[in-house]
Amino acid sequence: MNPTLTLEEIYAPVDADLKRVPQIILDILATPNELASDVISYFFSGRGKLLRPALTLLGAQIKGAIPSSEELLRLAASFEIFHAATLIHDDIIDSAYLRRNLPTVNAKWNSQVAVLVGDYLHDKAMGTIFKNGISDIFSLFLETAGAVCDGEIHELNEKGNFHLTEDEYIQIVDKKTAVLLSCCVEAGGRFQGVSKEGTKALSRFGRSFGIAFQIADDCLDFTGNEHEFGKTLGADIAAGVLTLPLIRVLEVSGPKKRQEIIGIFKSADNREKFQELLALIKENGAIAYSLEKARVYSQKAQAELEAFPDSQARQSLLKLLDYVLERNK
Amino acid sequence: MNPTLTLEEIYAPVDADLKRVPQIILDILATPNELASDVISYFFSGRGKLLRPALTLLGAQIKGAIPSSEELLRLAASFEIFHAATLIHDDIIDSAYLRRNLPTVNAKWNSQVAVLVGDYLHDKAMGTIFKNGISDIFSLFLETAGAVCDGEIHELNEKGNFHLTEDEYIQIVDKKTAVLLSCCVEAGGRFQGVSKEGTKALSRFGRSFGIAFQIADDCLDFTGNEHEFGKTLGADIAAGVLTLPLIRVLEVSGPKKRQEIIGIFKSADNREKFQELLALIKENGAIAYSLEKARVYSQKAQAELEAFPDSQARQSLLKLLDYVLERNK
Repeated sequence: MNPTLTLEEIYAPVDADLKRVPQIILDILATPNELASDVISYFFSGRGKLLRPALTLLGAQIKGAIPSSEELLRLAASFEIFHAATLIHDDIIDSAYLRRNLPTVNAKWNSQVAVLVGDYLHDKAMGTIFKNGISDIFSLFLETAGAVCDGEIHELNEKGNFHLTEDEYIQIVDKKTAVLLSCCVEAGGRFQGVSKEGTKALSRFGRSFGIAFQIADDCLDFTGNEHEFGKTLGADIAAGVLTLPLIRVLEVSGPKKRQEIIGIFKSADNREKFQELLALIKENGAIAYSLEKARVYSQKAQAELEAFPDSQARQSLLKLLDYVLERNK
Repeated sequence: MNPTLTLEEIYAPVDADLKRVPQIILDILATPNELASDVISYFFSGRGKLLRPALTLLGAQIKGAIPSSEELLRLAASFEIFHAATLIHDDIIDSAYLRRNLPTVNAKWNSQVAVLVGDYLHDKAMGTIFKNGISDIFSLFLETAGAVCDGEIHELNEKGNFHLTEDEYIQIVDKKTAVLLSCCVEAGGRFQGVSKEGTKALSRFGRSFGIAFQIADDCLDFTGNEHEFGKTLGADIAAGVLTLPLIRVLEVSGPKKRQEIIGIFKSADNREKFQELLALIKENGAIAYSLEKARVYSQKAQAELEAFPDSQARQSLLKLLDYVLERNK
C-alpha cells in the first residue's frame, strides 16, 4: 500500500472523462435564474472529491476501457448533483458553516435559499438520470434516493440518543451514504451492460465500501485537520449526532463515566469540551476500534472485486479502498 | 352563478374516487420510520382542498365518466403529495406557523424535520408518478417540478423588491402555482387518452385557472377569515413577498405615498401596521383591481373548455372557476 497515493493517481483510468464532469454539472444546472445561478457557481467552485462520478465511470470500465459516452458522463454528473443537493440540505439540518473550505449555502445566503437550491439540484439530477440512464438505472436511482432520505430522517430521529447501538449506526450509515455510492458503481456497470451477477457484485462492493468510507469520515470529524477535511471538525457532535467513536466509548464505559461523557457531549460545541471529549475517545481506543471496523468492511468490499478479471478500473477501486482508510492516518 | 356552491358539490362527478385519495396518500407514504410517519399522519390530518387530485380526475373524465382505475388514483394522490412537499418547504421559507388550521411542520417540529420530510414526500411523489403514469406523464411532471422550483426561487429573489411589476408577478405565479394545476388536469387527460389538441386545451385551461386561483389566494392573504383560510393572514407581507394588491397600490401611488407604504410594509408583521396597510389597499381599490385580473384569467380558462362537448366533468371545471372567484367575497 502506497500511503502517498492521491485521488488523482487513483482516478487515472477515468481521468480524461472525470475532468469534464465539473463543466457538465454546470451545463446541466444552467438557469436564467440569477440567484440560483450564483449559488450553483459558488457551491461547485469548492472542488469536491468527485467520488460518485468516479465510481460511476470506474463501474462502467470494470471489464476494461470503453470509449467516452456523453450519456454516461451526464449520468455520472447527475449523481454528483444529487449528492450536492443532499449536502446542501444536510448543512441546514446540521447548521454547519464550512463545506469544502467554503462557508455553506445556509451560512453565506440563508436556509431558505439552501432549501430551494437543494430542491432544484435534486430535480435536475432526477430529470437528467431519467433522460440519460436506461430505464432500470432510473428505478435503481429512485430506490436509492428514497433510502438516502430515510437514512437521514433516521439519523435525525436518533440525535441525542445515547443508547444508539453500533448496529443501528451501521444501518443509518448504509442508507445515508453507502446506498448512493453503491448505486453509482452499479449504474456504471448496468450502463455498460455488465451481467446481472456482475452488477450485484458491484452493488455489494459499493455498500461495503460506503460503510468503510463513512466510518472513516466520522473518525475524521474528530481527528482530521479542518483545512484538509474542508468541514468543521466536531460538526456531528455539535449537531447532536452520535457516530461510531462515541458509541464505542459509551459502550465500554461504566454508568458513572457514561454520565460524565454525556455531560461533555452536550456542551461539546465549546472547543475546550470538544478537546476533552476527543481525549476520552482516544484514551479508550475508540478511534482505533472504529477504523478496525472500517477495515473489515473494506475487506468485504475487496472480496467482491474478485468476481472480475484484472483491469485498470478494478485496480483503481482496490486503491480507493486503501485511500479511504489511509486518509485518516 | 351559485354563491353557496361548495367544493363537495363541485367535485360530485369524481366524488367516490376522490374520497379514496387521502387513504391512498397514506398508503404511498407508509414508512417504518416513526418520525416521518408521525409527521405524515399529522400533516395530512389537516384536510386540504384536494384540488390537484380533483383536477386530475376531472381531466380524465373530460370526455365522459370512466371506470375507476388504481393507477389514475395513485397518480392523483401523488400530485397532492408533491404539492404537500412544496408546502412543507414553503412554510420553512416563509417561517409560517399556520397551515390548514394546524401549526406547520417547522413550527411543531423544526425546520430540519421539515426539510427532510419534504424531501421524502417529493421523492415518493416522483417514484409513484414514474411507476403509475405513462412515460410522457412523467416527463411532463419533471418539467413541472422544475418550473415550480424555479418559480419559488424567483419569488424568493424578488422578496422586498418594490419595483416588481405585474408582469413579473404573473410569471412567478404561473410557475409556482399554475404549472402544477395545469399538469394535473393535463395528466388526467393524457392518462385517459385525450387527443393532443384536447390535452393542450386542458393544459392552457390549467394555466389560466391557476393564475386566477393564485391571485384570489393572494387577495385572501389580506381579506380572508384566518380560520376559514386556514393560514396566517398577512403571511406574504410578513415574509416580504409582494403580491398583486400591493404591487397595484404602489403603482398608483406618487413617490411620497410609495415611501410611506414601503415603510408600513416593512413593519407590517405588526398587527396594527397590517391593518393600516390593508386600509390603504382597500382605499385604492387594489383588491377589486386584483380580483378583476383574476376574472380575466378565469374567462380565458373558460374559453379553453369550449373545445370539449358538455360533460359532468366539464361542468365541474366551470364551477371551479366560479368558486375560485367567489371564495374571496
